[in-house]
Amino acid sequence: MITDSDLARPLLPGDGPQEFFLPPLPRLLPADYHPDAARIEISSNGWVRRMLEPCFDSEESLLLFLRQRNGLYGPLTVPYARTARAQNIADWYQFVTVIDSFVSDEAALGADHAAAAETFAAVVADLRDGGDGGGTASLYGDAAQDLWRRIAAGMSARQVERLVASLEAFLRGCAQEIRSKLAGAVPDFEACMGVRVDSFGCAFLELLTEYAAEVDMSRPAAEGVFDEVHHHGMRQLILVNDLLSWRKEYAQQDTMTTVRVLCEVEGLALQEAVDRLCALVEHHERAYIAARDEVLSGPHGQREDVRAYLSGLDHLIGGSQEFEYLTPRYFGDGAVWDGSVSGWISLTAPVARFRDAPGVPPCARPARPLV
Amino acid sequence: MITDSDLARPLLPGDGPQEFFLPPLPRLLPADYHPDAARIEISSNGWVRRMLEPCFDSEESLLLFLRQRNGLYGPLTVPYARTARAQNIADWYQFVTVIDSFVSDEAALGADHAAAAETFAAVVADLRDGGDGGGTASLYGDAAQDLWRRIAAGMSARQVERLVASLEAFLRGCAQEIRSKLAGAVPDFEACMGVRVDSFGCAFLELLTEYAAEVDMSRPAAEGVFDEVHHHGMRQLILVNDLLSWRKEYAQQDTMTTVRVLCEVEGLALQEAVDRLCALVEHHERAYIAARDEVLSGPHGQREDVRAYLSGLDHLIGGSQEFEYLTPRYFGDGAVWDGSVSGWISLTAPVARFRDAPGVPPCARPARPLV
Repeated sequence: MITDSDLARPLLPGDGPQEFFLPPLPRLLPADYHPDAARIEISSNGWVRRMLEPCFDSEESLLLFLRQRNGLYGPLTVPYARTARAQNIADWYQFVTVIDSFVSDEAALGADHAAAAETFAAVVADLRDGGDGGGTASLYGDAAQDLWRRIAAGMSARQVERLVASLEAFLRGCAQEIRSKLAGAVPDFEACMGVRVDSFGCAFLELLTEYAAEVDMSRPAAEGVFDEVHHHGMRQLILVNDLLSWRKEYAQQDTMTTVRVLCEVEGLALQEAVDRLCALVEHHERAYIAARDEVLSGPHGQREDVRAYLSGLDHLIGGSQEFEYLTPRYFGDGAVWDGSVSGWISLTAPVARFRDAPGVPPCARPARPLV
Repeated sequence: MITDSDLARPLLPGDGPQEFFLPPLPRLLPADYHPDAARIEISSNGWVRRMLEPCFDSEESLLLFLRQRNGLYGPLTVPYARTARAQNIADWYQFVTVIDSFVSDEAALGADHAAAAETFAAVVADLRDGGDGGGTASLYGDAAQDLWRRIAAGMSARQVERLVASLEAFLRGCAQEIRSKLAGAVPDFEACMGVRVDSFGCAFLELLTEYAAEVDMSRPAAEGVFDEVHHHGMRQLILVNDLLSWRKEYAQQDTMTTVRVLCEVEGLALQEAVDRLCALVEHHERAYIAARDEVLSGPHGQREDVRAYLSGLDHLIGGSQEFEYLTPRYFGDGAVWDGSVSGWISLTAPVARFRDAPGVPPCARPARPLV
């Protein structure tokens, strides 16, 4: 671990390069929208208002969250699912993204990792409780119990256990991110990846892919059939996220991102770090496809359920990336995606977008003629 | 016509009731999203940036427009169309909504109806030109020619003539709205409706429904087969729009809206006017359905193309209403729809939403606990 005192923190806001160039990424996997994506997002926004409104300190904070369009993460990652399951998954992802938002907020969960850990234990207790224990222990309890009732009903006993464990892993990762950020500690690459696999929710990303495809991979997964597939797939997910969320993580001084790791621990310039990560994205995307094809051509590849699950992982990876281009969560409140996927990104503009050239102020435009 | 000097302008901002109650509307017609709605909207936003950026005075103005999600009006009104046609229609509606926005803006087209009429004549010339005339005469020319090339290719010669005429009617309606607003003149109900049929674009709403359904209704339409259907359908469209856009029209002091007509010309209180309009919406919606069913059960109802067109009109009416609930154009920049369709609407809150009770400040909420 390298701590604040060892470095001049060159990547804190105001220091270092104020923009970088994101080249086109390979995008070899499908990015499809669920046919009911629009309605699922709207309905999920209503669910957030009903179940999670007390978690926000104002109507404006709630709207800021809803404008990030997090309700589309579900429809984009499970476009093939039956609508009811896609809706449950959309609500789950909104739920964990609400928590993730407050983890990054030093005026909320991000203020104190020990207090956050207590809150998280209460959330898990509420989830385990499944709504039968009378009342809830946390602010997030009603939402957790509602999700439990709807999702666990479509899972095997083993998957239900994995659902609880996946939420625990996610919350453990969140607590570690808070601790690291409060200490100003930037980890090395593999340590960062270890935490990110938890805090990115990889366990429930995989499990909800099974749920969407209506299959149970508990046994082959435990036997290691998907180890290579998951290793490369999850690294692709995390590294694409680190690239596209860097503007936000930079502004929030987060430590648990591979961009900052490469710059501060490995000494790369920002653009070098971005280019290295892009190469890694391509490496892991191609390695994921090779590993997936190896499973498909082996004995497990004969099974319909395994094939459905692997197809679901393709959509998870492609859809997650599509979401990260479009969400104003990363490019700033008020951003609207126009489909572009490469260009110069400002770290300081209130609203960023991919620009053709560096250094152009985003509003430098001739005045509009009146008519 | 009643002009400013005759009245105390009770409905200008700052005067009169600051909120009203919108009861649930009947919603007897289908509101479906095109299965590619999300992608069509994103792609259409890219088209607006490419083709119409010079019409906006800043990047912020362009983003404000894109945040209104006008690119969803197409996918919501032609959910059954082939994707390429739905995309062309989405871009068309963005195009006319850009013009409509500047018509309401006294710092843009809304400044001078004579100058606006000249601009509009140039737009029509560009459209007629179809991109073969070498260059464009108006700021909107490239967009108009691009739309022409894409849409006219899928229309009969007679429909192409109607396309030009429909744009002319729309622009004529816009110019009349500018003139009326600059004069502060509130018309009577039927005069208002006459202008609104033009300025709401009813002629191209009908024509693009044919284009989406891949049918040509030029002949039966000219023979009057759809007169009753169109009369009631278009009144429903306009009245629902007047109700849901009242907050915006109030802020912009527009005169050409039936809410203001009922209040200022017919002397109703705001809530009485709203209730009257809701009753009219129900009347016209049911009368539309009856007229549609009469055509379906008559000799024309045997024709596959007529049935497809009438089904398209159902979607136009239902989808238009769905759009008007969700667009931040009407409830304020930053609004996010949560699916609610009835409640108290503030005319003064920067961002409105349907609330359960009147008079509650939108941000009056207890502070959030930290964890």
